[in-house]
Amino acid sequence: MKRSLRELGEAIHARVLGDDRVEVSAVSSIGQAAASDLVFVESEKDLEAALASGAAAVIAGRFAADRQALKPLLIAEQPRLAFARAAAYLNSHAGYAPGVHASAMIDPSARIAADVTIEERVVIREQVEIGSGSRIAAGCVVGAGVKLGARCHLYPNVTVYPATRLGDRVVVHAGAVLGGDGFGYARDRETGKYEKFPQVGALEIGDDVEIGANSTIDRGALDLTRIGSGTKIDNLVHIGHNVQVGRDVVIAAQTGISGSAVIEDGVMIGGQVGIADHVRIEAGAILGAQSGIPSKKVIRGKGVVFWGTPARPIGEYLKGLAALARLTRKS
Amino acid sequence: MKRSLRELGEAIHARVLGDDRVEVSAVSSIGQAAASDLVFVESEKDLEAALASGAAAVIAGRFAADRQALKPLLIAEQPRLAFARAAAYLNSHAGYAPGVHASAMIDPSARIAADVTIEERVVIREQVEIGSGSRIAAGCVVGAGVKLGARCHLYPNVTVYPATRLGDRVVVHAGAVLGGDGFGYARDRETGKYEKFPQVGALEIGDDVEIGANSTIDRGALDLTRIGSGTKIDNLVHIGHNVQVGRDVVIAAQTGISGSAVIEDGVMIGGQVGIADHVRIEAGAILGAQSGIPSKKVIRGKGVVFWGTPARPIGEYLKGLAALARLTRKS
Amino acid sequence: MKRSLRELGEAIHARVLGDDRVEVSAVSSIGQAAASDLVFVESEKDLEAALASGAAAVIAGRFAADRQALKPLLIAEQPRLAFARAAAYLNSHAGYAPGVHASAMIDPSARIAADVTIEERVVIREQVEIGSGSRIAAGCVVGAGVKLGARCHLYPNVTVYPATRLGDRVVVHAGAVLGGDGFGYARDRETGKYEKFPQVGALEIGDDVEIGANSTIDRGALDLTRIGSGTKIDNLVHIGHNVQVGRDVVIAAQTGISGSAVIEDGVMIGGQVGIADHVRIEAGAILGAQSGIPSKKVIRGKGVVFWGTPARPIGEYLKGLAALARLTRKS
Repeated sequence: MKRSLRELGEAIHARVLGDDRVEVSAVSSIGQAAASDLVFVESEKDLEAALASGAAAVIAGRFAADRQALKPLLIAEQPRLAFARAAAYLNSHAGYAPGVHASAMIDPSARIAADVTIEERVVIREQVEIGSGSRIAAGCVVGAGVKLGARCHLYPNVTVYPATRLGDRVVVHAGAVLGGDGFGYARDRETGKYEKFPQVGALEIGDDVEIGANSTIDRGALDLTRIGSGTKIDNLVHIGHNVQVGRDVVIAAQTGISGSAVIEDGVMIGGQVGIADHVRIEAGAILGAQSGIPSKKVIRGKGVVFWGTPARPIGEYLKGLAALARLTRKS
Repeated sequence: MKRSLRELGEAIHARVLGDDRVEVSAVSSIGQAAASDLVFVESEKDLEAALASGAAAVIAGRFAADRQALKPLLIAEQPRLAFARAAAYLNSHAGYAPGVHASAMIDPSARIAADVTIEERVVIREQVEIGSGSRIAAGCVVGAGVKLGARCHLYPNVTVYPATRLGDRVVVHAGAVLGGDGFGYARDRETGKYEKFPQVGALEIGDDVEIGANSTIDRGALDLTRIGSGTKIDNLVHIGHNVQVGRDVVIAAQTGISGSAVIEDGVMIGGQVGIADHVRIEAGAILGAQSGIPSKKVIRGKGVVFWGTPARPIGEYLKGLAALARLTRKS
Repeated sequence: MKRSLRELGEAIHARVLGDDRVEVSAVSSIGQAAASDLVFVESEKDLEAALASGAAAVIAGRFAADRQALKPLLIAEQPRLAFARAAAYLNSHAGYAPGVHASAMIDPSARIAADVTIEERVVIREQVEIGSGSRIAAGCVVGAGVKLGARCHLYPNVTVYPATRLGDRVVVHAGAVLGGDGFGYARDRETGKYEKFPQVGALEIGDDVEIGANSTIDRGALDLTRIGSGTKIDNLVHIGHNVQVGRDVVIAAQTGISGSAVIEDGVMIGGQVGIADHVRIEAGAILGAQSGIPSKKVIRGKGVVFWGTPARPIGEYLKGLAALARLTRKS
């Protein structure tokens, strides 16, 4: 949908320089920009290319504010953030026609808001609640007693086990499995056989969480697994039973978090990181890709990068690598 | 379903101390226990909290046997195991109403036991056999010639490729893929192109196996991939073609086992472990999380923990870490 | 389907020694071979066993060419490759009856070739194009504007996001997710909250690509993610947004490739490898299992094996391990 720069600038809190009646309808990279596209630059060195592109307008930082430009500019403190918001704004009226497809199978006891979209072959069981504006794509199976807030979006073929609760605006990509049984067994000392430890707790997910394709988040064994609001989880991530993830945490692809670990607010976790059971990652720590945190460890240091297995502050880790390299050269 | 402690004690081989007419209906953590819940403690230090909780009764070890308690106790040699069995017993009559949903598509040549539950939109192809009491959840696709034993449970959206065989009481969580093609190609030395090596073997899974969400287990290339009885596999695990996994093995999340590896009985494998092709892990060995076993290696040592890449006995691995740390401090 | 050795020899460019009227119908391992099976040997030491097996005929290298054998032989330069081709040839007429199942839901604007197979409960959205001979298995969801070439095969429960393009003969195993949103956010410096960076690019896959079960390949953020022709991808692999993968690349299970990485032609990547963002792996390099490539690194060396994290040429890596082992013994 076309929007004038004036309207857009107000929506994303950016100042328009140049003709604010110019209209844009989509975001683009500088290389691909077409006539009604909006692009962005984060540093002065990219500004020329953006102005020379096919785009209708450019979001830029204050570095561009006193510039005579051939195209209108939107000046923002954080250009990348402003661009993200512009994309969401331009897309906000795209929407899907609400409605329930005839092939969806919905238990009569489910409470579904009036303006929800439910696509082909969705199965929704007893006592499910789905909030306003939510969209459940084809092939999803939503277990008994599951609660989804407003404007959630489940992509195709997602499975939600019974009693899972999602807040508002939670996005779950295709194939993800929410609320499955945790991996817990009691081993019989006499026979060596494993018997299933009860996995009867629930999974609770806050608001504005995004969960990547084919990721799996288990419910608690007896209590809760919790994912805090604003947290973003990439593809193929595993989160075990009873894990507590705080707010605004990012977890990159293929990371695994074992049972009862605690990840505090604002932690950043790279790809393929392994976090053992009962670990605590304190607020704001950063775990480099492939690092490993052994059982029960506490990682502390806001803004500090940890790397390696077992993970150490990155300076220490790099010193170890350098020492080993010297040793290798000598031998 | 409510059960008296007398009945429960007999079922799980625990001795009741106190009023054995008291009834319980569910298991719980100590913190969450409600009036008809059963909790457990493994050590004396937790007993007070359990007795002070809202629970109706407590499973405990012999340490509690001569104790005057405010609640009835069930005394068991292995309290955690007794609790697991109690949970299974209390849940055993929950059951699903058997029946085939009208939207399921079942080939007429399939042989389905009378008391099976087949949910919405399940596809079952020619010559499939499904044993008594099994349950196939919504969205599963079961390929031609697949055989499931009694009381198996496939959770939603599981795909089973043709000719896979499952024993009795096998549980497969949502999104898992069983019997897919292995990763094998013949590379043409002249063109550098890969042509698919035939992946026409089968996958055979024993009794009492549990397989986590979104895990993938490939069929053999020409022969069999085998998973032994009692083995438990977590989420997002990959098991390649021709792998032989023994009995009562546990494999934690995101571990990958390459083609033709052999994992003997009772092995314990942590999360994110990588096992290369043609490796042999001998009976009872323990592989720490993220460890890696290079191609064709043999790992031997019942009860010995191996760690690192390439994996060594943990004592040796920790010495290496310590030596490196000293070296780093010196430099 | 039965084929004479004469016909088969012509198809796979192998020379028949012995009775070329003998017929075979399937491939097998030597241990399992039945009367109409074909087996192969790559070295002379396995020839006796092959000749003593139940197989009807044996593919072998030139080492067997002057041999008086009890069974007919097919002599090929590359016996394993010839065997792979023979398997494909014997299977080429197996085929599925083309047709669209009554339960499939296909948007009227989709253009589907006449001889396509579309199974139960498939959903195909507006403007999709599907080429001749392709097969879409039960439960797949194919988003708006997706294009599949000729003779593609999607196994059950695959999700293809809108605007993804596949070439000819692309095979996608069960549960894979193609074209999902990449993992990109803009973090608000003031609030610490993440807002979604637009993920509106596309995914383009060449010809003859095979993608394993439950793998996930994201679309570009603003531009394209590309997978080159002939590339083979194992199970549970993650490929992030804007990644460029060349031709004839192999990627083993559970490897993750982060945003904007470039993998050139003919690269071989082991299992559980982690490749950070903006890395370049130059043509023909080989990455050992579990190795890790830090952000923005360039890996160069055709035919050179790299191992470890951060990955080094394997000789250097092994020297490091040896030096550490000596150090450990001393201490």
